[in-house]
Amino acid sequence: MASVWISGAGMTPFGRRPQSLPDLMADAAGAALTASGIEVPDAIVVATMNPEEFLGEGNFASRIATHLGFAYVPAIRVETATSSGAAAIYTGFTAVASGAARSVLVVGGERMTHLPTPRVSEIIGRSIDPYERSYGATMPALAGLITRALMARSGLSAREIAQVAVKNHANAVGNPYAHFRAPVALGAVMTSRLVADPLRLFHCCPISDGAAALVLTASRAAVRIVGIGQGADALAVRHRQELTSFRATQAAAKAAFAMAGFSADRVEVAEVHDAFTPFELIALEDTGLFPPGAAGRATLDGETALGGRLPVNPSGGLKARGHPLAATGIAQVVELVWQLTGQAAGRQVSARVGLAQSIGGLATNNFVTLVEAS
Amino acid sequence: MASVWISGAGMTPFGRRPQSLPDLMADAAGAALTASGIEVPDAIVVATMNPEEFLGEGNFASRIATHLGFAYVPAIRVETATSSGAAAIYTGFTAVASGAARSVLVVGGERMTHLPTPRVSEIIGRSIDPYERSYGATMPALAGLITRALMARSGLSAREIAQVAVKNHANAVGNPYAHFRAPVALGAVMTSRLVADPLRLFHCCPISDGAAALVLTASRAAVRIVGIGQGADALAVRHRQELTSFRATQAAAKAAFAMAGFSADRVEVAEVHDAFTPFELIALEDTGLFPPGAAGRATLDGETALGGRLPVNPSGGLKARGHPLAATGIAQVVELVWQLTGQAAGRQVSARVGLAQSIGGLATNNFVTLVEAS
Repeated sequence: MASVWISGAGMTPFGRRPQSLPDLMADAAGAALTASGIEVPDAIVVATMNPEEFLGEGNFASRIATHLGFAYVPAIRVETATSSGAAAIYTGFTAVASGAARSVLVVGGERMTHLPTPRVSEIIGRSIDPYERSYGATMPALAGLITRALMARSGLSAREIAQVAVKNHANAVGNPYAHFRAPVALGAVMTSRLVADPLRLFHCCPISDGAAALVLTASRAAVRIVGIGQGADALAVRHRQELTSFRATQAAAKAAFAMAGFSADRVEVAEVHDAFTPFELIALEDTGLFPPGAAGRATLDGETALGGRLPVNPSGGLKARGHPLAATGIAQVVELVWQLTGQAAGRQVSARVGLAQSIGGLATNNFVTLVEAS
Repeated sequence: MASVWISGAGMTPFGRRPQSLPDLMADAAGAALTASGIEVPDAIVVATMNPEEFLGEGNFASRIATHLGFAYVPAIRVETATSSGAAAIYTGFTAVASGAARSVLVVGGERMTHLPTPRVSEIIGRSIDPYERSYGATMPALAGLITRALMARSGLSAREIAQVAVKNHANAVGNPYAHFRAPVALGAVMTSRLVADPLRLFHCCPISDGAAALVLTASRAAVRIVGIGQGADALAVRHRQELTSFRATQAAAKAAFAMAGFSADRVEVAEVHDAFTPFELIALEDTGLFPPGAAGRATLDGETALGGRLPVNPSGGLKARGHPLAATGIAQVVELVWQLTGQAAGRQVSARVGLAQSIGGLATNNFVTLVEAS
């Protein structure tokens, strides 16, 4: 398998954005291509979760290729619910690794803030098993159930899951691309409006617009994808072997580390899928970055803060950078590229190896990507 | 790049089907896996154009993986409008060729007949450039415009485009998987209801339900994918350099033949995208199987019939086998595998090399796949 490098990274600021999704994607792709020095990629992989219902658009790969001025460049769209961006990286990776392409533009994004929140939630909620959905299950409801089980079984505390939000908001203050750039206090998180017991508003990521892009190349660049893995689990939460950890993350991490040929102790910075703050703690344990049951305490102790032993979500994460669905898995790797190459002013950490973890649906289709500075 | 083999092929009958799409996909996938002898694939690529609006479903890759009993097998969904099935083959191909997977189940399908035809047409019509759509352009309208230009410029006759339907219906009589199995007479085609001048009802493929599947492996099997290529063109028809041929097919064919290391004269059977019958003639010329302007006459002369020099659409094509969107690109290759391995009783031709050509949108995102018996 040939080496795959990241020669360019770019993204739009996340948040409520006035632009159309094609314009957002053009901004992100333009930034990534400019950084890479590649004028026309061999292929394009487009990630978007649901342009049909969010935007009333179809044939979106061709739509974006044409909009970018690359009407003659083959483009495909990839979708794995909320991990679509990571799936697009995986698809671009195999295209370069197979020799089918020398350069691939991977661009993902979503635009949702123009729709009423209940409509967005209903669309995203269709990621859930139809039978569980028929009983009224929503993403926050199932996340709340998992969190409650975690608190009961492993002693996870309300302060620990609140501290994730405090840390990620603090990180986002230094990130000009973040949706929320205001710090939040622990007390404010713990007394915010209840969404799905025990999850409160400040435990949940926002609905955001935005796009992110990477240029993957067969030719050497400053950062290399040294490992990438995908993991899966049953669609229905009731069919899982474990409720309080995610098999899909564990399997993805195992595959990624096997490809990289090293273990979790080499990782110096991580971007993980904190759509709900307890999911950050589950991710840190499922990827092996922290021992089981240790991530909550470590967070309270500052180990995952910007100045800590292992900075996690220096970008602000989904919680504070925002979560434009199919942009997110790509934005995580954009942040890692910037961190590894000293382009993360305001939130810069010192790291040569980074890990990104992305969740599709309610942890049915997850990805772990490992990048290393060359 | 490692060799990629097709070790199993399967499909459901196309037509109005009572089953759900997950059940249709399970039937097709089960048949392909049984034929391949592989119990659990390393990865799954799911093709479906629009489960969100046709079915109200999301997270469809995980939905199908779980439904197939492969909850732990990584699955992604690929979408390129009406060529999604071919795009899924391409994605599975690069996964095996890169060494990322030793076996990939590629399964595609669509279920649409439960919806009113105008709703289906409206959804499919969103593949068209938004500006052209805003003037009321539909897929048949643009296809009619292209056909009218073809008739004016190259002398294509109404009899020639009608004969494509006659031939493909005749072929489907022998195909138990076909949507329509009744022959049609030239006169009936030429006097059928006008849809979009000069296209009549019997020039247009039906709306069908169905699914098709392939198992791609790194280990040797009876048929090998010797070439695969993707080609693209501007979303808007008014931005094309040519109106009466498709750059996207030409580029895909060029890439596929370059990979295969041989030219069109080696091809002995073809399955092409006759969503509208004149598109079969355009495809035969764009792929180099016939010289420019020769395909219509050759069709009238029986050269592309089952007993002809180069049988085209022995399955019945989209016109008569049916067109469940994302199933189609896969079903074309299923038919080629069956033809190359002597499993096409009732429509069997003698061939060792086959070509499949699939159109995404109004020829914005096309694929050509070349398979060879080993």
